[in-house]
Amino acid sequence: MQLYHHPLCPHSRFVRLILAEYGIEAELIEERACERRREFLLLDPAGRTPVLVDDDGTVVPGAGVIAEYLDETKGAVAGAARLMPRGVRERVETRRLTEWFNGKFFDEVTNWLVTEKVYKRFASAENGGAPDMDVVRVARANIRYHMRYVGYLSGARNWLAGASLTYADFAAAAHISCADYLGDAPWDEDETAKHWYQRIKSRPAFRPLLADRAAGTIPGPCYADLDF
Amino acid sequence: MQLYHHPLCPHSRFVRLILAEYGIEAELIEERACERRREFLLLDPAGRTPVLVDDDGTVVPGAGVIAEYLDETKGAVAGAARLMPRGVRERVETRRLTEWFNGKFFDEVTNWLVTEKVYKRFASAENGGAPDMDVVRVARANIRYHMRYVGYLSGARNWLAGASLTYADFAAAAHISCADYLGDAPWDEDETAKHWYQRIKSRPAFRPLLADRAAGTIPGPCYADLDF
Repeated sequence: MQLYHHPLCPHSRFVRLILAEYGIEAELIEERACERRREFLLLDPAGRTPVLVDDDGTVVPGAGVIAEYLDETKGAVAGAARLMPRGVRERVETRRLTEWFNGKFFDEVTNWLVTEKVYKRFASAENGGAPDMDVVRVARANIRYHMRYVGYLSGARNWLAGASLTYADFAAAAHISCADYLGDAPWDEDETAKHWYQRIKSRPAFRPLLADRAAGTIPGPCYADLDF
Repeated sequence: MQLYHHPLCPHSRFVRLILAEYGIEAELIEERACERRREFLLLDPAGRTPVLVDDDGTVVPGAGVIAEYLDETKGAVAGAARLMPRGVRERVETRRLTEWFNGKFFDEVTNWLVTEKVYKRFASAENGGAPDMDVVRVARANIRYHMRYVGYLSGARNWLAGASLTYADFAAAAHISCADYLGDAPWDEDETAKHWYQRIKSRPAFRPLLADRAAGTIPGPCYADLDF
């Protein structure tokens, strides 16, 4: 498999975590979606990372579509480690929370942080430049209530969507890990959320992400630290 | 079933079309999500329409989650009329295009049009007021390339995602119908897209939408006309 991704694209990180949990090795191809490379747009006209290309040439674009595809093609063999639960209500809750992080958290937090602090560095002169700190401050305010929601959920349940680890945990962790890389994860906000993140961050699937470095950036001081 | 919706929320229309295609009657409860009503937020903390409540009390929030839920609980009995294809690649294409309209088209077109022309009418004094016509003009420019994409897809295939009618067609039709209601669907842009829309608009599932009126608005002149 090949995965077109960017090291600080949270949706790409979500897919990388799933692949690692399922023990699937994929060739990572770094893509700067904002450059709108012709060959990339031919793979996916929406022109957004991540895009997965399976061994048989099937092109699967977008975090949500990839998650459903991987569940349908690889989930059954994962047995108890399957990241999409079998029960109807549990599936609703897993999809609701996965969409919460890949949609709402992205719109309110990670899209702002990554665009301002990372993508602007290699954007065209017209769209690039220094980060707009007003935008960054809004994202930093917004992430606090999401942290409390993660704390509330992981305090009431074993993992975010229920008793077992699901896509919801990896969606949340993918987005929070981007904020953490950029030094914008407020670990003083919610102790329960921090404990949940420590648990998921310690999983072997997380290691490649902790070694990630995006060109021109340095991760926050506790980014790769398992005991932050 | 109960469906919390708004008459001009395109994601609600998407779900109403699916329910009607499957012959499922649901009680419609009009919700103004921007009012952030406490009972509604308890159903879905994201506070967005649509939210489906099934007969057994299962709460299913969000267009994408509802579509998967309905496929898993009602799709199998629909047989050949099932709106999510069985083949893996066909499922990828259906989900890709459903997400294209519910995500990208919404971000670039319907969110702007409906917020400016409808939701602002009943918003608080702080957020309400006359439509910002600069925003409306951007949405009207953006919808044109989406119309050409619909024309391209429906010219190359029978329906948008392939040989059979799928969720992708209803996602596209739901969003375009909102723009059409507001008089912002450019029917001069692409003849093939117009023919596709005529076909889907003629389906019985579409009738309740064509009778819709949102408070304080009048639909465009050809909105309910099947031969526009």
